[in-house]
Parts: sequence; structure tokens; C-alpha cells
Amino acid sequence: MTQNIYDDEEFFAFYSRLGRSVEGLDGAPEWPSLRALLPDPRGLRVLDLGCGFGWFCRWARGHGAARVLGIDVSEKMLARGRAMTRDPAIAYAREDMEQLALPAAAFELVYSSLAFHYIAGLDRLMAEIHRALLPGGSLIFSVEHPIYTAPGQPGWSRDAAGRATWPVDGYLAEGPRSTDWLAKGVIKQHRTVATYLNMLLRLGFALAHVEEWGPTDAQIAARPALADERQRPPFLLVAARR
Amino acid sequence: MTQNIYDDEEFFAFYSRLGRSVEGLDGAPEWPSLRALLPDPRGLRVLDLGCGFGWFCRWARGHGAARVLGIDVSEKMLARGRAMTRDPAIAYAREDMEQLALPAAAFELVYSSLAFHYIAGLDRLMAEIHRALLPGGSLIFSVEHPIYTAPGQPGWSRDAAGRATWPVDGYLAEGPRSTDWLAKGVIKQHRTVATYLNMLLRLGFALAHVEEWGPTDAQIAARPALADERQRPPFLLVAARR
Repeated sequence: MTQNIYDDEEFFAFYSRLGRSVEGLDGAPEWPSLRALLPDPRGLRVLDLGCGFGWFCRWARGHGAARVLGIDVSEKMLARGRAMTRDPAIAYAREDMEQLALPAAAFELVYSSLAFHYIAGLDRLMAEIHRALLPGGSLIFSVEHPIYTAPGQPGWSRDAAGRATWPVDGYLAEGPRSTDWLAKGVIKQHRTVATYLNMLLRLGFALAHVEEWGPTDAQIAARPALADERQRPPFLLVAARR
Repeated sequence: MTQNIYDDEEFFAFYSRLGRSVEGLDGAPEWPSLRALLPDPRGLRVLDLGCGFGWFCRWARGHGAARVLGIDVSEKMLARGRAMTRDPAIAYAREDMEQLALPAAAFELVYSSLAFHYIAGLDRLMAEIHRALLPGGSLIFSVEHPIYTAPGQPGWSRDAAGRATWPVDGYLAEGPRSTDWLAKGVIKQHRTVATYLNMLLRLGFALAHVEEWGPTDAQIAARPALADERQRPPFLLVAARR
């Protein structure tokens, strides 16, 4: 089963205070880029894998989605998500994405934000997603960028002049990485960019767009701490069509 | 015009002594991976952009290509290429890829090894390539990997334990980089992985495979100096179909 760090009391308390938890989608600086990759949700059946508090589920429904199913492994997050809507067209289900079985040809849009890098059996999950999408349907997802997940000891290095670099090692050594993000010993799966893309191509997905996300000038002006994220992309965004 | 560093006496002398210059394709450790992406050349009309000494041109013709055109900006390299074959089905032409105009629907295979990262106007060149390929034709190319080209001051960093890391900065700041590789002030164009891929997708290419190349265990056993290349990929290989 996926490590369920989000139900850890301490992790959950920290995570709940992040901008993206308090403000929802608008608290995530990559959301405008991810949104630009989405099809118009009107009339679509939508699946959100790793839905967390359900911000995207409610956004999709608010923009006309016919039905939205949000899946997450964290009971705490789903409970908060359920408390935030009474819309009968939004359903939440607690499922482990490592074991998930999806109905065939049931969705026009599958979305996932920053969840797939926790999944060891991503090949299996991607095949389920392909089966669950109708022909022409879209898969739009973000993950932590492989440059970000590669290092054994991730972190900025600063020279005497204050220049920040992100020392990369282990890029081609795929597999688990244990990091101390909000809590100790969070396990993420490092994969290369090529592995993410070839996984989709092998299944028959057509790639539509790839983005190595970094903050805009306006975002840096509003939050100067984001500037370093231009040195190496924190997120990889992918749009594919079945 | 493209900086024509290959016709610099000193650079040419150094370059001529590299494994890939002396031994040809088998001296390039990424060749087996690139070869695996190629269609069977039998009967194909082939274009090699940045053909250098013409090793690939002769390989393609030796494997049954109907005709091969090799293009390079370096007169010195073309002269040596011409001296190595009398096959009338292989032609070499001196052209600047920044200005290149190609005939429409004239090739089934366009190949380019480690040349596109010298080209500032790659969008224009890719559109020419798309026009020059027949429907179903293949574009197979390698470039220096964006993780490799990004840093302002590229190079390995080693900690006290001898652990090698590749400090990355400027990844999202695309544009020229001046490096001292074999000669001083060689200008390369840094682009992100996403930029290379989206350029193809926008033109209507379908991506078939992406590879972030690193040496195999057998290659490292034979040449231990290659081991660090597993820490970050030196080359990006792409297969696309028109």
C-alpha cells in the first residue's frame, strides 16, 4: 500500500497550513499552467486521482462537469473534502492507487496533481487510467520534476556570491527517495522525464504538451521566495490524449 | 550564421582525436540507443543534419538506404567525409542550418546527432524538417541534454566523500551558453526538454520515444570514466513521426 503520510497527525497539521491547502487551487502557483492544459469540463465525467481536500473536484463541477469522482488514500483529507460540498454529483472514495481498479471507458478527463510520484506501481495505474478513459479523453497531471526528485540529498547549494544551484545526482537511478518534507521519511518514487513520457506512449496515449513549470515574473514579484524555482523546475506537467 | 567552430584549426584538431571521430559511430557510447530508435533504412531517402565526417551517411547507405544527403556547415568535416566514399548515392552539401531550405516531401528519414543545440533558429529548422518529411516519415535526433547545457558554469562538484553532483542553475532561462569545450567560447543554445518536445508537437509530429541517455553497466565496465554520466544524462534522444 502507498505510504499514507497524509493521515499522520503532524504531517496533516503542517500540510493543512500550506497555501495550496488554505487557499485551494489559487494557492498553488502552478495551477494557472495546469488549468491551461485542461479541456473545458462542461458535461465531462471527471476523475481526480489524489484529490486531497477536493479543491479540483469542486472546481470541475463548478465549471460544468457532469460528475466528478475524487480518489485519495487519506481519510482525513477526504473527510474535509466531504465537509466542503453537498453536491450529489461529486463523490469521494478512499482507495489506494497502488491497487485501484477503474471501470472501463467511464471518464472523459482524468486529472492528478502531485500524486503520481508517490506511486511505485505507476505502470499499472497508467494502464488502468488508459482503460478508464474514453477514446479522445484527456489525462492531465503534474508530478514533482525529476530534477527535483533525483538527488539523494536534495537541497540548494549557495556559493560565496549567493548564487543558488541545485546539485543533481542519481538522475538515472530510478526508485524510492526518502525525504524530510513536512515530516521525516516521506517516500517518493524518482522517475526520469523519459520514463513518465514513454509509459504513456507505450500505452497508446498521444502526448499533447509537456511543461517544466517555473514561476512567472509576476509570481516572483508577488512572492520573491519563488525566484530560485527558475533555476530548476519544481514540477513537471503533462497533457496526453487517449 | 551558425558559429562554425568545427573549421577552427585548433578545435578541429582536438575534435578529430575524439573516439567518435576516430572510430565513427561505434566510438559514440549513445549510438546503440540511437540506432535502436531508427527505422530500417532499406530503400529510404535519408537526410543527416550536421553529418560531420559522414559516418552515419555511410552507415545508412551500407544498410540499404536509397539515397543519403549529409549537410554540415564545416568544410573541413565535409572534405574528410567526401574522401571516405565514392558512393554516388551519398551526397554532401555545405549549408548553414540556420538558413537551410529543404525540398518538400523528399525524405523518409531525417537524422541529426548532437547538432541542434548549436542552432538558434531551431523552430524554423524543425518546420523545414516537417515539410521535408513524407507522412509517416521519422525524425530521430540527439542533443546535449538540457540538464547538461543549463548551468552558467557547467562542471562536476565533488564533496569530501568524492560524491559527484552536477549543480544545475538557469534551467528555465533558455538561450545561448558559452562554454570552453575543446576550444574557448563555443556557443550552444540551451533549451528545456519541454521546449524540444513542444516544438515537435506544435508542428504536428507525434512523439514515439524519448530517452535520457546514460551508459550501460557494460559500457562503464569497459570505460570507468563514464560512470559519472549516470548522475545526470549527457544526451537527450528523441524519436518522432510526421
